[in-house]
Amino acid sequence: MRKILVIGSGKSTSYLIKYLLDKSTTENLQITVGDLNIESAKKMIGTHTNASAITLDVFDANSRETAVKNADIVISMLPARFHIEVAKDCVTFGKSMVTASYVSEEMQALDQAAKDKGLVFMNEIGVDPGLDHMSAMQVIDGIREKGGKIILFESFTGGLVAPESDNNLWNYKFTWNPRNVVTAGQGGAAKFLQENTYKYIPYNRLFRRTEFLDVDGFGRFEAYANRDSLKYQSVYDLNNVKTLYRGTMRRVGFSRAWQVFVALGMTDDSYTIDDSKNMSYRDFVNAFLPYSPTDSVELKFRHALKIDQDDIIWDKFLELDIFSKTKMVELDKATPAQILQKILLDSWTLDPKDKDMIVMYHKFGYELNGKQHQIDATMVTLGEDQTYTAMAKTVGLPVAIATLAILNGKITTPGVQIPITKEVYTPILKELEDYGITFKETEVPYLGYNPLNV
Amino acid sequence: MRKILVIGSGKSTSYLIKYLLDKSTTENLQITVGDLNIESAKKMIGTHTNASAITLDVFDANSRETAVKNADIVISMLPARFHIEVAKDCVTFGKSMVTASYVSEEMQALDQAAKDKGLVFMNEIGVDPGLDHMSAMQVIDGIREKGGKIILFESFTGGLVAPESDNNLWNYKFTWNPRNVVTAGQGGAAKFLQENTYKYIPYNRLFRRTEFLDVDGFGRFEAYANRDSLKYQSVYDLNNVKTLYRGTMRRVGFSRAWQVFVALGMTDDSYTIDDSKNMSYRDFVNAFLPYSPTDSVELKFRHALKIDQDDIIWDKFLELDIFSKTKMVELDKATPAQILQKILLDSWTLDPKDKDMIVMYHKFGYELNGKQHQIDATMVTLGEDQTYTAMAKTVGLPVAIATLAILNGKITTPGVQIPITKEVYTPILKELEDYGITFKETEVPYLGYNPLNV
Repeated sequence: MRKILVIGSGKSTSYLIKYLLDKSTTENLQITVGDLNIESAKKMIGTHTNASAITLDVFDANSRETAVKNADIVISMLPARFHIEVAKDCVTFGKSMVTASYVSEEMQALDQAAKDKGLVFMNEIGVDPGLDHMSAMQVIDGIREKGGKIILFESFTGGLVAPESDNNLWNYKFTWNPRNVVTAGQGGAAKFLQENTYKYIPYNRLFRRTEFLDVDGFGRFEAYANRDSLKYQSVYDLNNVKTLYRGTMRRVGFSRAWQVFVALGMTDDSYTIDDSKNMSYRDFVNAFLPYSPTDSVELKFRHALKIDQDDIIWDKFLELDIFSKTKMVELDKATPAQILQKILLDSWTLDPKDKDMIVMYHKFGYELNGKQHQIDATMVTLGEDQTYTAMAKTVGLPVAIATLAILNGKITTPGVQIPITKEVYTPILKELEDYGITFKETEVPYLGYNPLNV
Repeated sequence: MRKILVIGSGKSTSYLIKYLLDKSTTENLQITVGDLNIESAKKMIGTHTNASAITLDVFDANSRETAVKNADIVISMLPARFHIEVAKDCVTFGKSMVTASYVSEEMQALDQAAKDKGLVFMNEIGVDPGLDHMSAMQVIDGIREKGGKIILFESFTGGLVAPESDNNLWNYKFTWNPRNVVTAGQGGAAKFLQENTYKYIPYNRLFRRTEFLDVDGFGRFEAYANRDSLKYQSVYDLNNVKTLYRGTMRRVGFSRAWQVFVALGMTDDSYTIDDSKNMSYRDFVNAFLPYSPTDSVELKFRHALKIDQDDIIWDKFLELDIFSKTKMVELDKATPAQILQKILLDSWTLDPKDKDMIVMYHKFGYELNGKQHQIDATMVTLGEDQTYTAMAKTVGLPVAIATLAILNGKITTPGVQIPITKEVYTPILKELEDYGITFKETEVPYLGYNPLNV
C-alpha cells in the first residue's frame, strides 16, 4: 500500500478525497486524513476501508512529524500560512508534497533541499492558481510550437453561483471565503500592461474599470483587474507581450454597485468601530455619510454617490436591507469590512440546494507568419451540491491527480514548482476532461486594444 | 551666561534663533546652534557675539553628548524621529528640552525619568501642534471658569500663500514640506464626531467632504478632515462633547480639484513606476487612464472624472501643464506621489518675493445657564519674506518663548508634556501678541449640526 497523508479536511477537499478513495483499491492507496477536528476528517472518508482519520495539530511537532514520516507523499490543504511546517518535515523525512497555494518565500527557500533529495514540491495546483496555469501554458506552448509569438495574454477567473441558483439582484453569492471577497483588490494599485503601456488602477477606481466577457451558453460577465497581472510574466516567458491582464469575473453590474461600498469606505479592514455592537445596519451606513438631523440616510447615500432616482443599482442596496433600522450589526468592535461581510451574508449565503460555478476565460493573441491571430479559451464547471462544489472539484481534482502522478513516477522533476511544464499539465488536463473540466477553444479575430494599428 | 543649545538650523528656526539672539544680552544668553551642515548654522547666527555654530551629527554620540552636557537647556528642531537620542542625553545630563514635534512613544517613556530629575520636556509647542493647543485651551479653560460646558470643538489650520502672493488657480503654493502635502490624508480613514455620532471618511472621499470657513478680512476658506480629530479628546478633557472635528484649511476649490489626483491614484506613494525617468507628464497622467490608440489623454481624463467641458476645475489642470508631451518626469523609479510632487513644484514653488500665511480657526460651542453659545477664534499670520516666514514665526516663537520661560523658572512643572496648562500657555500667548500673533474671538450663534434640535 502507498500511503497518502492529506492534512486538512475543509470544504475544498471533498473531490480530492473522493478521487483518492475511488482509486485506492486499483492504485493500492491508503489514505490518512488529518485535521485538528477529527470529526471533519471522519465525515470526509465515511466508512471507506482504505482510509483513516487522525487528529492532527500542525503546530504539534510530534504528531505532525509522526504523520509525515509515516506517509509516502503529503498533501497540505491547510491555509497557505501553515504549509511551511509540513514542508520542512517533508524535506527532513524525504517526502514529496502537494499544495494548492501560492509559493511563499519560505517555501521557495526549500527548493535546493527538495532537489537534493529528489522530492517534488508541487504548489499552485488548484483552480486559480492551478488550472489557470496549466490551461494557459498548454495553449501558449502550442502556439510557440507552431512558430507563433505571443503578443497578448489575458486571463480571468470567477467563483460564482450557478445560473439555476442565481436569484438575487447582484447575481452573486459567497461560494468561497467571504472575507476575501469583501477585501478584494485592497493593498495597492492594480498594475497591468496594455499595448506596451503600463497602466495603474487605484483601489478606489478598480471596480469602475471593468471589461465584458461573453461565454457561450452562459451569457455575459464582467471582470475587474487583479493586483498582480504581471506576476507570471517571466514565469510564462511573456516578457515581450504587448498586453498582459488578469482579472476576476463577476456578473455584469456587480462591480458598479460594489464600487459604492468602496467609495464610502465600507470595505475598510484597517480600523475598528468602537460601538459597532449596538449599531443597526442603518447606523453603519450612516457612519460614512455627513450628519444631518433631518435628511434621510437614503437620500444622503444617493446624493453622496450621485445615484439617480431611477438608477437600477438602487434595488441592489434595498435587497441587502442596508437601511434597516432593526437589523443589528451585533459584532463587537468590528472593522467596516467585517460588518459589511455580516450584512452581505444575510443575502449572499448559499441555500442548501444552491450550486456554485467556476468560470475561466483566457485570451491568447499571437503573431504567426506576419499575421495576427487570437484564441479564446473558456471553461465552466458547475457544482453538484454544497459538498461537491465546482470550487472543490476544480481545486481538489488537480491536486489529487498530481499527487497520484508523482506517486506513480509520471511527474519526476524535483524541486519547488508550479504546474507550467508539459510533464505536469499534459496528463492532468487530459484526466480532468474525464471529469468534465474542459476548455473550449475558439479562433477569433485578433483585436488587441489597437485593432487598426493607429 | 545661560547656555542654550539649538540642534538643527532648518527653515523653521529663523525666528527662533533671532528671538534668542535679540534677548541674549538682556537675558544673559549664549546660543550654540548645532547642525550637520555648519554653514547653515553659521548663516542663521550671522556675526552675533553671543552665538556660535558647531557641527553636530545627532548620531555621533560623542559630539552630541558633549554639546548637551555643555548646555543649560536644549532645543531640538530636527525631524521628529531624531529627537529621542537628544532626549536621552538630556535625561542623563539633567537638562530640560523643548521640541515642536508630536510626543512619540519613546519620548513619552522618558516621562518618569524627567520628573525624577525635575526636568521640563516640552513638546508640540510649534504652530500645529502648539499654537492650536494653547489658543484652544485658553478659551476652553475660560468657558469652564464661567461654568460653561463645552459641547463642540472644531479646529482648523492651514499653511498657505499670503493673499498678495496668491496668484495661481489653486490659490496654493508649497510653504512647507511638499511631500506631506501630496500624501496628506493617507494611511487610514478620517474619524470624527458630529452630534454624538462617529463619522468616518475614507481617503478616496476625504477631499469631497469639506466645510467652509470665513475669516474676517481674508475671505473664504475650506477645510478637509484630519485623520486624528479624536486624538486630543481626553487630553483636552472633551469626553462629553457632541462634535469634535479637526481639519486642514485650503482656499475654496482646492480640494475638489485635488480629489481628481486622489481618484486617479496619482498621490499613491506605495509603489514605484519602473520607467518613470523617461515619461513625459502626459505619459504619467495616461498611466492612470485606459489605453486608447486614438482618444486624447485630455478626453479620457475628463471622461474618467466626469469633468464637464465648462467646469472651472479644468483650467487648474492646464495651469499645471500635466498634459505636456515635452516636460519630462526625469525621476528614476519614482512613486506616483513623487512624480506628482515634481510636477506641482513647477507651479507651486514660492517666488523669491512671495510671502506665506498661517491661518487658524477654532469653534467652541458651549452651554451656560441652559443656553447654547459659540465662540469662534481666528488667527492669521503673514510672512515677511522667505526667511522670516509665517511658518517659521508661528513654529519658532512659541519654542523660543517656552525655552526662556523654562530657563527663567516661569514654567517649572517637570515631565514630558504639551502646552495645555495655564502655567505654560498664559505667558506664551501673552508674549506672542507682541509679535502680532493674536486671536480674534467672536461670539456667534451656536448652530452645531442640529440647530433646531430636531
